[in-house]
Amino acid sequence: MKIQQVIKENRLALLFQQGSFGIEKESQRVYADGSIVVTEHPKSFGDRAYHPYIQTDFAESQLELITPPNKNIEDTFRWLSAIHEVVLRTMPQDEYVFPLSMPAKLPREDQIKVAQLENPVDVAYREHLVKSYGKSKQMVSGIHYNFQLDPTLVQQLFSGQNDYQSAVDFQNDLYLKIARNFLRYQWILVYLLAATPTVDTNYFRDGTPLKPGQYVRSLRSSQYGYVNDPSVKISYDSLQDYVNTLEHAVNSGQLIAEKELYSNVRLRGAKHARELLQNGIQYLEFRLFDLNPFEPYGIGLNDAKFVHYFILLMAWLDEESTESAVNLGKEKLAQVALEDPLSPTAFQAEGEQVLHQLLAMLADIHSDEKIKNIVKDKLTQFANPTQTLSARLVKAIEEHGSYQKLGAKLAIRYKEQAFERFYALSAFDNMELSTQALMFDAIQKGLKIEILDERDQFLSLQFGDHLEYVKNGNMTSHDSYISPLIMENKVVTKKVLAKSGFNVPQSVEFTDIKQAIAGYPLFAGRAVVIKPKSTNYGLGISIFQQSVHDREDFAKAIEIAFREDKEIMVEDYLSGTEYRFFVLGDETLAVLLRVPANVIGDGVHTVAELVAQKNDHPLRGDGSRTPLKKITLGDIEQLQLKEQGLTADSIPPKDQLVQLRANSNISTGGDSIDMTDQMHPSYKALAVGITKAMGAAVCGVDLIIPDLTKPAEPHLGSWGVIEANFNPMMMMHIFPYMGQSRRVTQNVLNMLFPELK
Amino acid sequence: MKIQQVIKENRLALLFQQGSFGIEKESQRVYADGSIVVTEHPKSFGDRAYHPYIQTDFAESQLELITPPNKNIEDTFRWLSAIHEVVLRTMPQDEYVFPLSMPAKLPREDQIKVAQLENPVDVAYREHLVKSYGKSKQMVSGIHYNFQLDPTLVQQLFSGQNDYQSAVDFQNDLYLKIARNFLRYQWILVYLLAATPTVDTNYFRDGTPLKPGQYVRSLRSSQYGYVNDPSVKISYDSLQDYVNTLEHAVNSGQLIAEKELYSNVRLRGAKHARELLQNGIQYLEFRLFDLNPFEPYGIGLNDAKFVHYFILLMAWLDEESTESAVNLGKEKLAQVALEDPLSPTAFQAEGEQVLHQLLAMLADIHSDEKIKNIVKDKLTQFANPTQTLSARLVKAIEEHGSYQKLGAKLAIRYKEQAFERFYALSAFDNMELSTQALMFDAIQKGLKIEILDERDQFLSLQFGDHLEYVKNGNMTSHDSYISPLIMENKVVTKKVLAKSGFNVPQSVEFTDIKQAIAGYPLFAGRAVVIKPKSTNYGLGISIFQQSVHDREDFAKAIEIAFREDKEIMVEDYLSGTEYRFFVLGDETLAVLLRVPANVIGDGVHTVAELVAQKNDHPLRGDGSRTPLKKITLGDIEQLQLKEQGLTADSIPPKDQLVQLRANSNISTGGDSIDMTDQMHPSYKALAVGITKAMGAAVCGVDLIIPDLTKPAEPHLGSWGVIEANFNPMMMMHIFPYMGQSRRVTQNVLNMLFPELK
Repeated sequence: MKIQQVIKENRLALLFQQGSFGIEKESQRVYADGSIVVTEHPKSFGDRAYHPYIQTDFAESQLELITPPNKNIEDTFRWLSAIHEVVLRTMPQDEYVFPLSMPAKLPREDQIKVAQLENPVDVAYREHLVKSYGKSKQMVSGIHYNFQLDPTLVQQLFSGQNDYQSAVDFQNDLYLKIARNFLRYQWILVYLLAATPTVDTNYFRDGTPLKPGQYVRSLRSSQYGYVNDPSVKISYDSLQDYVNTLEHAVNSGQLIAEKELYSNVRLRGAKHARELLQNGIQYLEFRLFDLNPFEPYGIGLNDAKFVHYFILLMAWLDEESTESAVNLGKEKLAQVALEDPLSPTAFQAEGEQVLHQLLAMLADIHSDEKIKNIVKDKLTQFANPTQTLSARLVKAIEEHGSYQKLGAKLAIRYKEQAFERFYALSAFDNMELSTQALMFDAIQKGLKIEILDERDQFLSLQFGDHLEYVKNGNMTSHDSYISPLIMENKVVTKKVLAKSGFNVPQSVEFTDIKQAIAGYPLFAGRAVVIKPKSTNYGLGISIFQQSVHDREDFAKAIEIAFREDKEIMVEDYLSGTEYRFFVLGDETLAVLLRVPANVIGDGVHTVAELVAQKNDHPLRGDGSRTPLKKITLGDIEQLQLKEQGLTADSIPPKDQLVQLRANSNISTGGDSIDMTDQMHPSYKALAVGITKAMGAAVCGVDLIIPDLTKPAEPHLGSWGVIEANFNPMMMMHIFPYMGQSRRVTQNVLNMLFPELK
Repeated sequence: MKIQQVIKENRLALLFQQGSFGIEKESQRVYADGSIVVTEHPKSFGDRAYHPYIQTDFAESQLELITPPNKNIEDTFRWLSAIHEVVLRTMPQDEYVFPLSMPAKLPREDQIKVAQLENPVDVAYREHLVKSYGKSKQMVSGIHYNFQLDPTLVQQLFSGQNDYQSAVDFQNDLYLKIARNFLRYQWILVYLLAATPTVDTNYFRDGTPLKPGQYVRSLRSSQYGYVNDPSVKISYDSLQDYVNTLEHAVNSGQLIAEKELYSNVRLRGAKHARELLQNGIQYLEFRLFDLNPFEPYGIGLNDAKFVHYFILLMAWLDEESTESAVNLGKEKLAQVALEDPLSPTAFQAEGEQVLHQLLAMLADIHSDEKIKNIVKDKLTQFANPTQTLSARLVKAIEEHGSYQKLGAKLAIRYKEQAFERFYALSAFDNMELSTQALMFDAIQKGLKIEILDERDQFLSLQFGDHLEYVKNGNMTSHDSYISPLIMENKVVTKKVLAKSGFNVPQSVEFTDIKQAIAGYPLFAGRAVVIKPKSTNYGLGISIFQQSVHDREDFAKAIEIAFREDKEIMVEDYLSGTEYRFFVLGDETLAVLLRVPANVIGDGVHTVAELVAQKNDHPLRGDGSRTPLKKITLGDIEQLQLKEQGLTADSIPPKDQLVQLRANSNISTGGDSIDMTDQMHPSYKALAVGITKAMGAAVCGVDLIIPDLTKPAEPHLGSWGVIEANFNPMMMMHIFPYMGQSRRVTQNVLNMLFPELK
């Protein structure tokens, strides 16, 4: 199978480097000292019966985190990060995720609980594993790396050759070639990436084989690791051989099931091996990776890229490893696994030679300089074994006194890191915070997420066959199209609300500036708001809070409004406080009061100092990706201070409220205060009614209410609705400055998937 | 009741001139010779049981067209125009609407059929009228003018006085004051606006009272018109008196029902007079207006404005007419009605005095110059009786030989005018044609329409309690919000369609120009389209129809696409013809082929002449308000000609297709060809499936199909979907250049109101 040549001749180099990537990562839940928990799999992680991201592996304490497949490894890492953040922020306060493959301070065997799965077959399988391998071995964790070549590449490679008549046969043999060559050279990855140099003595049933102070490269990949009995012989010569030998091993009782095959390469694409003969091999699973404790998610991105190109080399090489070559590879692996991490490997020359071949391939396919540098760095590690991961790990263990102490320290650090921006899903921070929150909840719940368009905040969510689309966090199929169209148009909104009997301020619309000014007598002596018909950002709005009594003032306000729109409205001004009601379906889930940017004096600090103190709040940031914004001391704020007879250097007396803005927008440093429990229920019911009149499922209703404690009365003096908003903001309810958090994104998911409630 | 003073003191002048206006217009359906039809009320006018706009009055042949109330008289006229256009375009080809109040060539009494209404009480009432008045009188038509003062004005006037404690009493007495003063001075309107100078002899049961060659001002307002027996005496002194006297007339058998009261002013606001005591008078109905045959809709806008201000004067005057003044007014009316239209009236001095008072009022309330000029013009008609409408009508009758001939001629002209822009609803021509078409259909069907926002094409439609909103002709509550959001985003659309198993061209998206260009090897040798992700107007699109084989060309196309968007796609190019499928619900209602602007040679005319000929087509126009657009001969067209070796002066041989554009947009002069019946049903079914996958109720699906006669096969060579559009255009299906019209707006209404189907 001459791959190189076809790739070069058909200019397939770029396609060759594409593919699909998935990562599964096992790890133990531990207490702060690194010892394994005895608690159940947390209910807050959702239901294991279907969860696509958060599962348990062998033991109840052993998490298995699974990314969806992605077209590039970077995205897979984003998922790995996101799932970790969900797990770390959701798990019990006193629990952590152990960053090392080898468990520390294992409980007594009788205290290790196998995963309490619903299906009795799954539990029986685990009980069998206990008998065959003992519980300790099953507690070892690692990384599985799934890789699929781009199907178009496989198709083009097939078109570019003459040896195969069948595309499926070609595809199978291509994957088998990779598998065999990988098994032949896998020791190189163990040399470079292994990270299981030691383990507690009680890990071994019959006493430790390690001399005091002895470290090895990879206990996990050694005969002491998670490996099948040497008598299990599986052939990779052809797919038919693979299926036959695997089925023989099961039928003869060597394995209880096909999935007990702990080979470092599994052929994937069907539930049972025999089905592969029909379907063809779809992708490969590589299983030999120890957790890298220096990486928060168990594997570094550069290492993952290195693995990708190492796998590609296995396809690229003209070499087709025979069964004896595969066996040679396995022997080398066993030997390298038990080598001293600080000494050179016995096979240094071969390792360097293979990496030189890899560099040659990278040159041929014009790959990125970055990946070349990664390979060059790995190459130098053959001459410098202390730079290998296992050597660096040994050093760290020595420094900390034990791998348990090292693991515990790192586990605590990684959990702290996951809380640094507790309101975000770091890896998806280019999306809106509300979409991040929704994804957080969906990952937690176990809904399958597909990001259809990242810039557009467009997700699909799936549970079984039930598929829903969500844009911008709460735009869904539950709203009818006409609702946002109504809400987009203030005039139409008011007509619809008035028709339904809700209190709306009366207004007159104008499309002509002269006519509008000529209409002054209609409004003289009344408190009015003059505003453009369709802007939404407070631009062009003038308020005559007491009453308008000067024709010139009126005309000026009309002109300002016409600058923003071709149509303006003069509307009754309502006095009272504005509250935002977040309504979903039949319920007002949250009520928020927005207060203009302000500080409160303490008689000691200047305004500038008080602002700096307030800006220290973890929810406040400069950019758009924080729930609250820092207060700036710009021109507008200075002017506002001046009106109160203050400057930034004034020291306001204790408890004096210093107003820094007139507008209450969160985006200009305003405070958000949850008032859900304080609000009289009659107003909450009104907001629901208004939402229904809009035909909306999710709506942000702005009511003006003079006294939120008194029940609503049917006149405009008691309450009035000034706006209804589709796609209402959610973050300000989830992370208010003061008051209780309302996790409204969870309600959105409950609305979309009531079957999951 | 001192109104003037309160208006002046409280600056209510502007409010005083506002109000609510409605017009009801009766007229006879006639044949081309002006004789009354003997056909039934056309079924195409919808169901009289609920129709809000098109009803029958007394006789089956007698249309009653009813506008909804509007805040200004201009809007009421737009409705009057729209309802007329619907009636004139919908009625049988050989029928017309007679423009004169007096029927010509009346059928024999036994051939006049009273309106065949469903409710037997309604029919019995009409039979009673026949007995009391004879059928002929009931065939007379006129205009009823409904007017309501602005409720805020009434409220403010009430606040500004001290005589009344009760707002309702005040409102009732205000309307009664207007009613009495109107009855006192109504003769002035008859002098100025009357238009029934003569009638056929057979109109009279007992022979004509008119001498040969005699004309009068208004037969309709005279004792020979549609008036109650003189013994019926109704008091307007107070609401209680009005109710008592009216009930007495009914109880004593003088009238069969309250609605038989043919007073020129009716108090409105309740079904039965007694209920007015509870509700208060809401508005007044003025009934003395003859049809003005020189106006297509029976009344001119200026006259309607004059009537408005005349009514206002009746409120403004300090004078409160007593019962005897009212009786004096009625006597004057009877006298003026029978005066010679060409001679001055006996009451010229009073008429001039009242109009001077009107001018004084207009000065006091700073009203528009235009309205002042209208009043001044009417004032001069007292000195010049030949300028009155009745005098001008007499002249026209004389010129045409008979009022029947005049009426027939005008009836034909008005019907022709209604067809001039048969695709539009002239009065609403500032709205989109599709919204005009939908309104046309809704008026025809009898759905209550409210224009919520004219610029925004936002309507509400109502049947009984069932309310629906429509924007831009087909955006409704039947689409879910997520559908247009999906369709707005080409990438998401394709992902969703691909998930559902529809053939979509494969594509790769890029957000970085360098990466996109570096991706050249992925596409080299393939036919591709390079386009920005989200524009919709054909901007930035490059097509490599055969295949792209030059890196530079590829790079240039990438750059062009990035000028239009931050994200672009490189997509497989599909070969075949593009068709637009208009899908609603479970059905493909229309299939359209769009052909780039072209002419076909005849061996005689130049290209420029052929273009001019083609542009003469009634559907083609320059602006945006025609279904098709004229072909321009601009730079792009010249270039296109040049590529074919032609200029605008070339004479192409017979049957040669001369292409004038590369793009097929209707907006650049393209042809639309209906292919609904030619298209193989399998593609129509696919379009329905695609619409369902989009979650849409109404969708415009663009399919590429190489052969529309062969059934669809499941591969991209047989068909591919390239776009799905929400709010798809409808006019091109309703008015195609070639092929059958598909009235899809009717389907939209059927979807919204299945109960009306």
